Amino acid sequence: MRIGGLEAGGTKMVCAIGDEQGNITEKKIIPTGTPQDTMPELIDFYKGKGIEALGIGCFGPVDLNRKSSTYGFIRQTAKLPWINFDMAGTMSKELQVPIGFDTDVNGAVLGEAVWGAAKGLDNAIYITVGTGIGVGVYIDKRLVHGLMHPEAGHVLLSRHPKDTYKGRCPYHSNCAEGLAAGPAVEERWGQKAVELADREEVWEMEAYYISQAIADYIFVYSPEKIILGGGIMHQKKLYDMVRKQTKELLNGYIAKEEILEDMENYIVEPLLGDEAGIKGALYLGVLKLGNC
Amino acid sequence: MRIGGLEAGGTKMVCAIGDEQGNITEKKIIPTGTPQDTMPELIDFYKGKGIEALGIGCFGPVDLNRKSSTYGFIRQTAKLPWINFDMAGTMSKELQVPIGFDTDVNGAVLGEAVWGAAKGLDNAIYITVGTGIGVGVYIDKRLVHGLMHPEAGHVLLSRHPKDTYKGRCPYHSNCAEGLAAGPAVEERWGQKAVELADREEVWEMEAYYISQAIADYIFVYSPEKIILGGGIMHQKKLYDMVRKQTKELLNGYIAKEEILEDMENYIVEPLLGDEAGIKGALYLGVLKLGNC
Repeated sequence: MRIGGLEAGGTKMVCAIGDEQGNITEKKIIPTGTPQDTMPELIDFYKGKGIEALGIGCFGPVDLNRKSSTYGFIRQTAKLPWINFDMAGTMSKELQVPIGFDTDVNGAVLGEAVWGAAKGLDNAIYITVGTGIGVGVYIDKRLVHGLMHPEAGHVLLSRHPKDTYKGRCPYHSNCAEGLAAGPAVEERWGQKAVELADREEVWEMEAYYISQAIADYIFVYSPEKIILGGGIMHQKKLYDMVRKQTKELLNGYIAKEEILEDMENYIVEPLLGDEAGIKGALYLGVLKLGNC
Repeated sequence: MRIGGLEAGGTKMVCAIGDEQGNITEKKIIPTGTPQDTMPELIDFYKGKGIEALGIGCFGPVDLNRKSSTYGFIRQTAKLPWINFDMAGTMSKELQVPIGFDTDVNGAVLGEAVWGAAKGLDNAIYITVGTGIGVGVYIDKRLVHGLMHPEAGHVLLSRHPKDTYKGRCPYHSNCAEGLAAGPAVEERWGQKAVELADREEVWEMEAYYISQAIADYIFVYSPEKIILGGGIMHQKKLYDMVRKQTKELLNGYIAKEEILEDMENYIVEPLLGDEAGIKGALYLGVLKLGNC
C-alpha cells in the first residue's frame, strides 16, 4: 500500500510517502507561505507517485463536519491567507485519491496510538506545548470531533500568584495557550525559552500552568495515557515537575494505580518524537482507504 | 420488551419497569440506606416481573472496566457502606438477566440523547449541579468511560474575586463541585439555596463558576448540545446568566453559529426533566440486551 501523508503546520508542511506500517520512504519539508505559493509545491510532491490515499493532519481550526458545505476547509486561523481555504477539496481534486482529513493534533495522537506511546490503548490524549497548545483526543479508539473539534488548549486556568503577565491569547485572559505556550513564555520573560533554561522560576510557573491543564484533562477525558510534547517540552526537566504538580492537584481523587503510583508511565514523551504528526497523517490516509 | 431501570443515587434509588420506547409502567422510590438494608428492597421490586435486562445508572465512582476484577463495583464513595459493593454483580446473580451498568450522569445523558433534548445528535453532555456536580459525556453516539470515567465536576476554576469561602471539596480547593454544588452554596452563604433566591450576589457568583466549567467543557468536548440540570438549576434565572457569561468567556473563539447566535438552544434544560436518569437507565438495559 502506498500512502501520502501531510502534516500541515502554520510554519512548515511535512510531506511524506509511506505505507500502512508507518514506514516512510520519502519526506520533504516545505515552508508554509500563502496557499497560492505553497499548494503547487505540495501537489507537485505527491503527483505521479502512485499514492492510493492522502492523509492530512492540518493546523486549524478546520471544518470536520462531513455534512457541512465547508468540510475540509481551514477556518478562522491566525494565518490569514489560509482562512476558508479548501485544503481537503483542493487535494482531492488535484490528486484524485481519497483524502483523510483531521486536525494536526488528532493526527499526532493517532500516530502515537497506532505506533507509539499509546499503542494498544483505547483512550489517550496528545498535548503539544509549542507555538500554541493543542490537544489531540482519542477516545474508545476513535478521534474526537464533536460540533467542531476540541480546542482544549484554551481551558481556563487559575493564575500563578506571582504572574503579572497579561496573557498572549487575544480571546481569553487566562487560558492555557495564552499563559503557557512558547510565545507567552518569551513575552513574559523577555527571552526565548531556550535562553531561559537556567531560570528556575520560569519552569516552576510553566509546570504550574501545564499541570492545571493536565489535571483538567484527566477529570474530563479520563485518558489511559497522556503524551506530552512540543517545543517547550524540550526542557526535559519539565516532565517530572509536571508529573509531580499534576499528582498534587489531583490529590488522590482519581484513585487509579496508573496515576497514583506510575506517573512516569502515565505522562510521557511522544515515542515517535517529531514524527508523531506525519505518521499519524499517513494513518489518516490508511483509515480513509479502509472506509471507502 | 420488558426492561428494568435503576437510577441508583446516594440519597434515593429510583426503580422502574418500562420498555424500549421509554414508557414507564411502574416506578418506586426507595431511600438509600446501607447495602444490607436497601438491596433486598431493590431486588424485591424487580423479581418476578419478567424483565429481560436491567440497566443501572449508578452514583460513583464506579468501576466500568470490563477487564477489571471489580467491574460493576462502587468504589471510593463518600457513602461509606457502599465502598467496594458489587452492584452489577449482585443484581446479575439475583435477577439472572443481563445488566447494563454505567454512571448516573452517563445514564442521564443517554436518556436525553435517545428521547430528550439531544435526540438525534451525535455529541452531547449532561451536567447536573446538585449535591455534587457530575457530567455525563456522549461522544460520537457513545458514552465516554476512559481509564475510569469522566469526573468533570472537578475541573479547576479561577476564584471569584469576592469569594473567600474555602471550598467544600475535600480534595481540591477550587474545583467546580467544591465551589458551586449545593452544599457549597449552603455553607458559603449560611442558608439553603431555596432561601437565597432573592440574593443577587449568590447567583452572580454561582453563574460565574458554572460558566467557567461550561466554557472548559466546550473547549474539551466540543458538544453539540449542553443539557444543564440538577437542584441548583431550579433557580431558573441561572440559565440566562450562565448562557451570557459562557458566551463572554468564549469571547468569539469558538465561531459556530450554534454558540454565537443560538445560546438558548445550546445550553438547555433537560427535556425529560427529573426522568432523564431513570429513562437513561432503562436504555442502558436496552443497549445491553442488544449487545448480548
